[in-house]
Amino acid sequence: MITLTLPDGNKKEFESPVTGRTVAESISSRTAKTAIAIDVDGQIRDLNTALETDSQVRILTTRDVQALDILRHSTAHLLAQAVQRVYPGAHLGLGTSIEDGFYYDFEIPPVDREMLDKLEKIMQEIVEEDLAVKREAVSYEKAHEMVKNQPFKIEVLDELENKQETVSFYRQGTFYDMCRGPHIPSTGKIPAFKLLKSGAVYWRGNAKNPPMQRIYGTAFFDQKAMKLYLKQLEEREQRDHNRLGRQLGYFITVPEVGQGLPLLAPKGAKLKMILQRFVEDEEEKRGYQFTMTPLLAKSDLYMISGHWQHYRDDMFTLEAYGEEMGLRPMTCPYQFMIYKSTRHSYRDLPIRYAETSTLFRNEASGEMHGLIRVRQFTLADGHIICRPDQLEDEFQKTLDLLVYITESIGLTGIWYRFSKWDPANKGKYIDNPEAWENSQIVLKRCLDNSGLEYVEAMDEAAFYGPKLDMQIRNVYGKEDTIITIQFDFALPERFDMTYVDENNQMQRPFIIHRSSIGCYERTIAFLLEQYAGKLPFWLSPEQAVVMTITSEIDDYARQVHDKLRERGIRAKIDLRSDTINRKVRDAQKEYIPLMITVGQKEQDNSTVALRILDGTVKYGIGLDAFLEYVSTLQAKRALKIDLSELGV
Amino acid sequence: MITLTLPDGNKKEFESPVTGRTVAESISSRTAKTAIAIDVDGQIRDLNTALETDSQVRILTTRDVQALDILRHSTAHLLAQAVQRVYPGAHLGLGTSIEDGFYYDFEIPPVDREMLDKLEKIMQEIVEEDLAVKREAVSYEKAHEMVKNQPFKIEVLDELENKQETVSFYRQGTFYDMCRGPHIPSTGKIPAFKLLKSGAVYWRGNAKNPPMQRIYGTAFFDQKAMKLYLKQLEEREQRDHNRLGRQLGYFITVPEVGQGLPLLAPKGAKLKMILQRFVEDEEEKRGYQFTMTPLLAKSDLYMISGHWQHYRDDMFTLEAYGEEMGLRPMTCPYQFMIYKSTRHSYRDLPIRYAETSTLFRNEASGEMHGLIRVRQFTLADGHIICRPDQLEDEFQKTLDLLVYITESIGLTGIWYRFSKWDPANKGKYIDNPEAWENSQIVLKRCLDNSGLEYVEAMDEAAFYGPKLDMQIRNVYGKEDTIITIQFDFALPERFDMTYVDENNQMQRPFIIHRSSIGCYERTIAFLLEQYAGKLPFWLSPEQAVVMTITSEIDDYARQVHDKLRERGIRAKIDLRSDTINRKVRDAQKEYIPLMITVGQKEQDNSTVALRILDGTVKYGIGLDAFLEYVSTLQAKRALKIDLSELGV
Repeated sequence: MITLTLPDGNKKEFESPVTGRTVAESISSRTAKTAIAIDVDGQIRDLNTALETDSQVRILTTRDVQALDILRHSTAHLLAQAVQRVYPGAHLGLGTSIEDGFYYDFEIPPVDREMLDKLEKIMQEIVEEDLAVKREAVSYEKAHEMVKNQPFKIEVLDELENKQETVSFYRQGTFYDMCRGPHIPSTGKIPAFKLLKSGAVYWRGNAKNPPMQRIYGTAFFDQKAMKLYLKQLEEREQRDHNRLGRQLGYFITVPEVGQGLPLLAPKGAKLKMILQRFVEDEEEKRGYQFTMTPLLAKSDLYMISGHWQHYRDDMFTLEAYGEEMGLRPMTCPYQFMIYKSTRHSYRDLPIRYAETSTLFRNEASGEMHGLIRVRQFTLADGHIICRPDQLEDEFQKTLDLLVYITESIGLTGIWYRFSKWDPANKGKYIDNPEAWENSQIVLKRCLDNSGLEYVEAMDEAAFYGPKLDMQIRNVYGKEDTIITIQFDFALPERFDMTYVDENNQMQRPFIIHRSSIGCYERTIAFLLEQYAGKLPFWLSPEQAVVMTITSEIDDYARQVHDKLRERGIRAKIDLRSDTINRKVRDAQKEYIPLMITVGQKEQDNSTVALRILDGTVKYGIGLDAFLEYVSTLQAKRALKIDLSELGV
Repeated sequence: MITLTLPDGNKKEFESPVTGRTVAESISSRTAKTAIAIDVDGQIRDLNTALETDSQVRILTTRDVQALDILRHSTAHLLAQAVQRVYPGAHLGLGTSIEDGFYYDFEIPPVDREMLDKLEKIMQEIVEEDLAVKREAVSYEKAHEMVKNQPFKIEVLDELENKQETVSFYRQGTFYDMCRGPHIPSTGKIPAFKLLKSGAVYWRGNAKNPPMQRIYGTAFFDQKAMKLYLKQLEEREQRDHNRLGRQLGYFITVPEVGQGLPLLAPKGAKLKMILQRFVEDEEEKRGYQFTMTPLLAKSDLYMISGHWQHYRDDMFTLEAYGEEMGLRPMTCPYQFMIYKSTRHSYRDLPIRYAETSTLFRNEASGEMHGLIRVRQFTLADGHIICRPDQLEDEFQKTLDLLVYITESIGLTGIWYRFSKWDPANKGKYIDNPEAWENSQIVLKRCLDNSGLEYVEAMDEAAFYGPKLDMQIRNVYGKEDTIITIQFDFALPERFDMTYVDENNQMQRPFIIHRSSIGCYERTIAFLLEQYAGKLPFWLSPEQAVVMTITSEIDDYARQVHDKLRERGIRAKIDLRSDTINRKVRDAQKEYIPLMITVGQKEQDNSTVALRILDGTVKYGIGLDAFLEYVSTLQAKRALKIDLSELGV
């Protein structure tokens, strides 16, 4: 007999061995019906696991979040089984549950929607077959025998450290997969699932490996929850910058140019220019000097920084006139060379260098996504070279700048991650405990002063110093870093950077790597998603359109248009002979924030009629008052337009 | 007996054969003394050439320009002879006279100033030896025997088309060189010469060939002329942007980055930003839309444009994930892809695309020069896509824009070259005689209307259309193209670009490739040279410095400084405890156009004292009047400051 303790403290005795299923049945028929797995002393196991010792147990039912994860993992197996029915003997890669669903990689021909539908149908058949899902633990040798026709599985198997331990497999019907589990008890327990999309990837994300097809899907314990999710997903897709940005004319991609290399069309280019000037002006006001440095260099430069030794696979490299060269993945070595080109006194510091910097990353094409994952991007990059006693002030100013910039463009949903070293894990970090401890104190103090929401991440700093990441989620909930501020105690040494102190001694400066708005392309993507394409007034590539009701008003319309442009408003004019409704509809489709209508009445009274994207309309606004109002919106970088601010 | 006709019409009879020397002696002893060569029926020959038939002749003396050319060519031989004395058996490349001097390439160790001095001394010895310079014509086989230890000469010899003709050599003492001539009669006829510099080149400019040392020098018929030239040369070197630009902190180069890849330091970057915003604003006003397109693409894109087939050797190429890629040498294919991404009606044209475009040219390192010959540069690039009936208007507007831009920045010494096709040479040009003729008429009419100085260059158009080049000379007199406007009848076809006309028919648009300011780096170089570093007020990266006489005035100085910055003036402040003379001297060294001095008197009266770079000083200027004046200078993009415009 063994004693199992339930979450409410009740103890129950069972004859050993006992399965989770029996335990569930002993609790209630409802629990038995919805049971998915069992938590045994904090470890989640299959419901069929035989328990033989006294334990704390908890039955996981369809209402547990962890159960959803198990369901999705099992649905990935279900998919693999269906793929094997379509392509018998197809090579399986790896499958896993992810946030909101699952994926599985296969070495099969490209998969279109038709094939996804076919696979879904087969999966549904297997669900109806209600095959029991059984775990078996076998020896390493036996495992090898079982996967002998699955090269990717063999690779994973061969990586096992301890070949004496047993290897677990999950079997459902004739299909089996090498897997740690846990899984649902039978395929009949998968009530709602959907295959979402597929795409090409490389085995283990490495382009040197064979290409595979990754199929994404999701699963839920009830159809209603899944329908709600699919609806949300559709709404998210509507906001996806990768769709909106193309549709609205912000960017295009072209097969002949290549993946991860978007071309900014006029709207995207204009938005980038607006952001760039804003950032550069703000940086200049705050004491930055600018540099413009080459986009490629000999390997010699990257040898000093260490990128050539450690980062070369992610770089675009080339040979020219017998020299090894590389497109730059970062700006630092270039700005450091400018620093080193003259002698610096302690009085000259801090020196703040900024550069609107084009950078390159040679990433696998499967990982590309719109303007967020790209092979070439533009970083508002910069480096502050300062004395140790200036670190706090400089960090605070850097933080102030990026908060100011992101608030000005209206990015929301931001939080911070403060990555620290682990003094217990010294081998991982540059050996300068004093610098680590002091700079972390400085960083924390500034964060606390600024009242920003942040989490601390122990043992996640870079090799060369602590850092602060500004985090955001994309429309699908995927977390991304948009801006990083990074202390660096290593490169000043590698680049032999110095300044002369009060006593005429050579000293090493400290370095802060920083950005003020992150990568422009990525920021544009987040703006498009947050605003669902309806960009704030001051950021809109096209801010206003003047539309005529009849062609008699053309001259007056031109006059209004010209006056707007004189005031620096990006206005256009629509003199087509179409109806005003058609003109409004077209302007709305382009999300132009200010729609100005002029007809006979407006001309006679020197007024305009105004419409904004939320549908609000205001008539009879005096032209001068209107122009004044628009100038104010522009000057204060208005994120929203509130027509009630305008008198009648 | 033969009859020779002199330039004045006089005929003289001589016994055949007669040498030029005898003819010269027959004219006057002065002519005999200064004779260098003889022009026989329009062909310049050695003075020792034996004449055997009736001819028109003219003795070339030291006063003839062509004689100077011969002298310099002979001095190149003199140098080669000296090199052979230092490095017996050294391999000779090619030597030639150039504008202002000569050079000769040798396969020898790098040459420093000490070696140049040594070679000069040996050359002087050979001059004093007064060796006769003798021509000999030998068979191809004999020539081969004579150059058997000279691999580069063998290469040149083997390229001769007609191996039956004789090959000429010039011999002076034990030295001889394979050469067409003509040459001076003896080494004693070289009265003044100087070796100027040396540098590494590749044999025939191709990096696949062995490296060589090119030694430059000059020679004159009298010491005075040479001294004058050397003085001018020194003055030019003072203005050389490659020297000034480094000295003033506009740019640096770094061996670890590589040749032809200058890094713009803060002053250079700021100047480029000032120019860039000016150009972009002006382009926007004139109806341009902007694009920002990737800096690399797959070979597929360059195959469409034809660059991959014809221009690949000048491109940086690389491989990434199994794709052939290239850094872009031009922007056109990228902008054309944006054009092609949507459908265009005849009503949408003209479309004017501009891009501040980074481009790459993989040129041999020996050809690099400061900011003028570089491997990466930034072109104010753009393309106008228009209907045939819009060509004239668009060309005129393009011309107006570039004249406006270059006048605004004060570039002078500009002329234009209009390159046309040759209808008699049709094979060289795209087959569209109507487009050629019409567009050339348009181009010429616009040029004539604009009243610009231009030359026509027959048969110098590109394959795909006529063009207009804006020409300028650098500080050494070397001619360079800074801006090109180019018609293109070929690429619209290759890229299958279309628009829909009034009758709903697909039509090919015309294309104008154009720049508005050329390459920013090159333009900065010309500005630095023209202004000898003293840039016009509105272009100066640092426009003003506020300097204190004593530290009691610091607050007032800060106030003046802040007010300047509020008005967008790039001002800095000098609060050092140094003397005002020292501060002024430092500001002058940096060519800061406005030097503002404040002391007790200025503070008491709310005035400033002003000094500009020509030395003019003005005291007691009311602060408000001063700020107003400076704002006016900025707003009107003042090239010059005239303090008399300021009341007292």
